[in-house]
Amino acid sequence: MPRLVDHELRRRQITGAVRRLIVRGGLEAVTFQSVAAEAGFSVSLVQYYCGTKKDLLLATHRSVMENVGTRFTQRWAALGEDVLPREAIRAVLTELLPLDEQRREETIVLGAFGTGSVTGQGITPEETLTAARLLVSIVADQLVRADHLEPPVHRIDLIAELITASIAGIAQGMIQGHGTSRLALELVDQQLDLVLGSSPRKPSESQELCT
Amino acid sequence: MPRLVDHELRRRQITGAVRRLIVRGGLEAVTFQSVAAEAGFSVSLVQYYCGTKKDLLLATHRSVMENVGTRFTQRWAALGEDVLPREAIRAVLTELLPLDEQRREETIVLGAFGTGSVTGQGITPEETLTAARLLVSIVADQLVRADHLEPPVHRIDLIAELITASIAGIAQGMIQGHGTSRLALELVDQQLDLVLGSSPRKPSESQELCT
Repeated sequence: MPRLVDHELRRRQITGAVRRLIVRGGLEAVTFQSVAAEAGFSVSLVQYYCGTKKDLLLATHRSVMENVGTRFTQRWAALGEDVLPREAIRAVLTELLPLDEQRREETIVLGAFGTGSVTGQGITPEETLTAARLLVSIVADQLVRADHLEPPVHRIDLIAELITASIAGIAQGMIQGHGTSRLALELVDQQLDLVLGSSPRKPSESQELCT
Repeated sequence: MPRLVDHELRRRQITGAVRRLIVRGGLEAVTFQSVAAEAGFSVSLVQYYCGTKKDLLLATHRSVMENVGTRFTQRWAALGEDVLPREAIRAVLTELLPLDEQRREETIVLGAFGTGSVTGQGITPEETLTAARLLVSIVADQLVRADHLEPPVHRIDLIAELITASIAGIAQGMIQGHGTSRLALELVDQQLDLVLGSSPRKPSESQELCT
């Protein structure tokens, strides 16, 4: 009986190899040769799954977005319907901070794609823009739910945009060595304090730290 | 009489060529051949000024930091001593937004260096970190000067860090197509409203827009 090939697994192995290569050497470290060597496959097998370098990069970008999306959905479901808006926003934002190895890899890869999309390396940021807009609307929904906004918020969308921009800056700053995980979480809380008024910290929050 | 060579001009021509190449194709588009072609020089002339690719990149990074620093100093001097803290911070922050072609180029180049420093492309972020720390301390100094902080600020440094992280996220978001110049300036004002309390907009502020 012929062995069944798990195509989904192979795709994950290939995109996993691409991610590691990007972390070590940027988008330009991705070639069919380097991906094949990293994944332990032949070049032709890699090409069977991804015909062009652009395919390779887009498949990898998609895999990161899927991982983030799955974690997001799970975390969101775990929060329940009674969650406070502040906690909901905080949960969403910390999912995007490089607080462990996987999120660190994701942040670096998405940062490289962000830069690459601007400097004309053949990838379009459409998927990134869609994700960013979704994030803004999730944050805005929670801000609408919050009943003790302080100062009174006339422009929910603008504040949601600001929170989203801040988290991007905090995440990229962390990756580039501007600060620790602890500082990043303090900055998230500071931003939420400014928007929603300060709230006492729970001791459990420090469990999210990896450094 | 032999023609005097303006070394400073040549250096600027070389680093200008590197900047344009990075904007068009990222750090990996920078080779001695491409820089020589872009600058209209011979490869050996480029090598005379910058012996290695790392030298080329570091000289370019330095040139961007010098340009930003010079503009900063001029803008700062123009503000005068009576400037309101909010206006001083706003002036500093908008200097870092890609509101015209030069700042757009700078933002793209610094973003590429930021990504490159993480993905191991042979450049260190030390100079970037120094600039970021300087920016945080400039913002913090102005926050201390502000006498109507709202909510009461116990943690000036943290808020200065947050403002600095936000501007990085706003600038990179703009470059990546997440928003217009107008949105970016609204986000800056929103962040300053949150920190310092809202203040009426002056009509002159729209002059900073390029789109």
